[in-house]
Amino acid sequence: MRHFLSTADWTRPELQGLLDRAAAFKTGTVSRALEGKSIALLFFNPSLRTRTSFDIGANKMGGHAIVLDAKGATWPLEFADGAVMDGTAEEHVREAARVLSSYVDLIAIRCFPEFKDWPSEREDPMISAFAKHSTVPVINMETIVHPCQELAMMLALQERIGAVQDKTFLLTWVPHPKPLNTAVANSALLMAAKFGMNVRLLVPDERYRLDERYMGAAERFTAEGGGSVTMTTDVEAAYTGADAVYAKSWGALPFYGHWDDEAPFRAKGRDFMITPEKMALTNNATVSHCLPMRRNVKIADAVVDSPAFLGIEEAANRLPVQQAVMEALASQGGVK
Amino acid sequence: MRHFLSTADWTRPELQGLLDRAAAFKTGTVSRALEGKSIALLFFNPSLRTRTSFDIGANKMGGHAIVLDAKGATWPLEFADGAVMDGTAEEHVREAARVLSSYVDLIAIRCFPEFKDWPSEREDPMISAFAKHSTVPVINMETIVHPCQELAMMLALQERIGAVQDKTFLLTWVPHPKPLNTAVANSALLMAAKFGMNVRLLVPDERYRLDERYMGAAERFTAEGGGSVTMTTDVEAAYTGADAVYAKSWGALPFYGHWDDEAPFRAKGRDFMITPEKMALTNNATVSHCLPMRRNVKIADAVVDSPAFLGIEEAANRLPVQQAVMEALASQGGVK
Amino acid sequence: MRHFLSTADWTRPELQGLLDRAAAFKTGTVSRALEGKSIALLFFNPSLRTRTSFDIGANKMGGHAIVLDAKGATWPLEFADGAVMDGTAEEHVREAARVLSSYVDLIAIRCFPEFKDWPSEREDPMISAFAKHSTVPVINMETIVHPCQELAMMLALQERIGAVQDKTFLLTWVPHPKPLNTAVANSALLMAAKFGMNVRLLVPDERYRLDERYMGAAERFTAEGGGSVTMTTDVEAAYTGADAVYAKSWGALPFYGHWDDEAPFRAKGRDFMITPEKMALTNNATVSHCLPMRRNVKIADAVVDSPAFLGIEEAANRLPVQQAVMEALASQGGVK
Repeated sequence: MRHFLSTADWTRPELQGLLDRAAAFKTGTVSRALEGKSIALLFFNPSLRTRTSFDIGANKMGGHAIVLDAKGATWPLEFADGAVMDGTAEEHVREAARVLSSYVDLIAIRCFPEFKDWPSEREDPMISAFAKHSTVPVINMETIVHPCQELAMMLALQERIGAVQDKTFLLTWVPHPKPLNTAVANSALLMAAKFGMNVRLLVPDERYRLDERYMGAAERFTAEGGGSVTMTTDVEAAYTGADAVYAKSWGALPFYGHWDDEAPFRAKGRDFMITPEKMALTNNATVSHCLPMRRNVKIADAVVDSPAFLGIEEAANRLPVQQAVMEALASQGGVK
Repeated sequence: MRHFLSTADWTRPELQGLLDRAAAFKTGTVSRALEGKSIALLFFNPSLRTRTSFDIGANKMGGHAIVLDAKGATWPLEFADGAVMDGTAEEHVREAARVLSSYVDLIAIRCFPEFKDWPSEREDPMISAFAKHSTVPVINMETIVHPCQELAMMLALQERIGAVQDKTFLLTWVPHPKPLNTAVANSALLMAAKFGMNVRLLVPDERYRLDERYMGAAERFTAEGGGSVTMTTDVEAAYTGADAVYAKSWGALPFYGHWDDEAPFRAKGRDFMITPEKMALTNNATVSHCLPMRRNVKIADAVVDSPAFLGIEEAANRLPVQQAVMEALASQGGVK
Repeated sequence: MRHFLSTADWTRPELQGLLDRAAAFKTGTVSRALEGKSIALLFFNPSLRTRTSFDIGANKMGGHAIVLDAKGATWPLEFADGAVMDGTAEEHVREAARVLSSYVDLIAIRCFPEFKDWPSEREDPMISAFAKHSTVPVINMETIVHPCQELAMMLALQERIGAVQDKTFLLTWVPHPKPLNTAVANSALLMAAKFGMNVRLLVPDERYRLDERYMGAAERFTAEGGGSVTMTTDVEAAYTGADAVYAKSWGALPFYGHWDDEAPFRAKGRDFMITPEKMALTNNATVSHCLPMRRNVKIADAVVDSPAFLGIEEAANRLPVQQAVMEALASQGGVK
């Protein structure tokens, strides 16, 4: 039985198959793959697009979505094996996953890291425990990667610029008042590399390098399938000739858990907001950002409101790509 | 493309058309106008009846409702154009409205004013921004007016007393521990005036006069379609001969944002609770209140539990009138 | 019109009928008893299994569930007749129940006691008020009893050990960091007694005796239908020869509202966790617990992960037994 936890576990042809299916949904193809089936959407963190698009997508395919707010509306969960549960957690994932599996046909989970201890949080313990104990397929709705966003991004890019092989993809750190999850940055890096793009990672300081698991995977993908991965702090060089710009802010991993120390390095990127001046250096590049997005902090209004902006199409693509993922997982032979 | 933001934007025949359609739903007419369609119900404030009746109503017409809790379960939203989003808001309505529009066919919004600054809040900035940027119709589930409640109220009145033209409608301020939104009072005023009733606004002090936008509109409606609008602080005169009594408590606008100063004026209405003695002065009037309603503070048990009370029928009417509104908006040619 | 508030109101043959229907659902029987109907799920407390299984169950029978979070997403409710509502409650159950009844065909309620005053809370005032004022059937999703859990427990027992008449059922108090609701213990007691089992109630101190309403009912049931009810503090005697072990922690009623005084008595049960050593004394007994369940506090991992553990099957049974309950209540002639 296959889960959808990270695109790193799926081959490029498999991912392209999901994108092609999503494109078909956009032009009227109808699937009833979830007829009589249900999906639990388990949120440990807030969501607007994800819960709406998963719910609508399941409904369009004849299925039924149950939205569960894991903080507040349900019980605190333990995921460690052998835990003596005398703290705040009322239930172990071993039970929660098996019981949910008895009710529904798919389980989707959003669980952001806690920003305290990267060595343990990089193991993605909650969704890993669900995937281990669930008897139905598990979908990642954003943990330390965000594979559904990646698919939506790549579909929007292919729709706008066609084949992306060997095109230049600028993944730029942008300002934000506080350190954020690296998930979307990790995912943008993985997906652009998987599809053979020349990935430039622009950061205000080398300390903003992403986790080696993702940097290394991106290097392997490009070694095998073409493209390249480079990191730079040179804004002008990074933008020059880029075909696609992708913006994201994140917290530098060396300061994980003691974030106050990150401030001076974060300050080095104070001018990293995407502006028309920077965009003028590119090869008429598209620009995008997952949503939510702070205007005039991460990207200037003049860029967001220009034809180069792909963020709305990318967000709209969440619906058909997630339909494709749900269909693919639900149609595995012999599941449940 | 038409929204349903305020009944002031709809003619009396159009509104009567919605009421007639609602009455038909109550006697068994079935509509499948939302087949394959969906509606997002976006709540910035709590709701029992509204979310239940919209969800059930959409479901009865073949549609699918998504309930979004805008405080907590989704991201804080910015609505000001040109904002530098370095505060708490994580997302601009420009993006939220366009993306939601890509997923769903209708967007309904509840967003109460913040009770801080009436000059800005009377512009209804959140729903106005959604209506401006959404590419699908927007429905008001209560902001500074509550048009769905108005329709439910008028349907209940017509069911009970038939034609309302030139009947006397007493809109009376009633006690409550704290200052409340003027939305339902504004709406009761608009709707009774639109349908040619003689509206008496009974308040403990002239400072409880409603906003000129609504007072002026009510005067225009009655000048054109019959009826009248008067304001009084004389309880006995107000009740005498009334055909319909409608109760609501609200905060006096001159004290908006510095509510402590309102206390002495609020105290002048301490005896404004609706009692059997007051009802005895009327022309065997109906009495109603939108729900929730504090018993024995706003209306005495003996009145609530008497046959004169229309509040349950009015609340029940929320379901069919909202079906009529959703059907009317969803069936606009060429929408989406 | 019949509600499902407590199994004490239903005869053993009626309850067996629900269990048989649930078993049929598990082997593929399809019911469309809720076609075009809806159910409101009103939660005053958190839920994972209950909301998921009711929602899925309604959907499987063609119905539509509305989940209402009564704390936060809706208004605070008053249930006392004649109350002057000048406190925090914004709405009376009289209105809420009648209006909800106008929208939906079934109302299900979860409302735990407040742990302050047992004499008033043992009257189950919220669900009692809903049952009194609702015009549609009301289902108990756990208040001071948990009848849906009872059905699921008994179905799991019958599936595993067949006829339960005269089998020995050990209901054992187990440790927990804080005093908990007696609902599941009351229900396990009622159900095992109703089905003629020899019930042993094992507690760390006689002060953990359950409320006389439930002890007395269990004694009546066994007097009429066979089996017996005994209470003991002797662990070894209690486990010896048991056929089914059921674990639950609860607060001792004599300390209700002044829980700090319970600590020394709670300490007497510090070794009451279910272990392989205790299970070795039984007649190869099954062991179960409603979920959520704290591992290695209430039951040791080695027992939870052994074939004796029925908790997952019991939780999975919530879905079909609740389908049976909804079907039975929705099919009453002349309802609504």
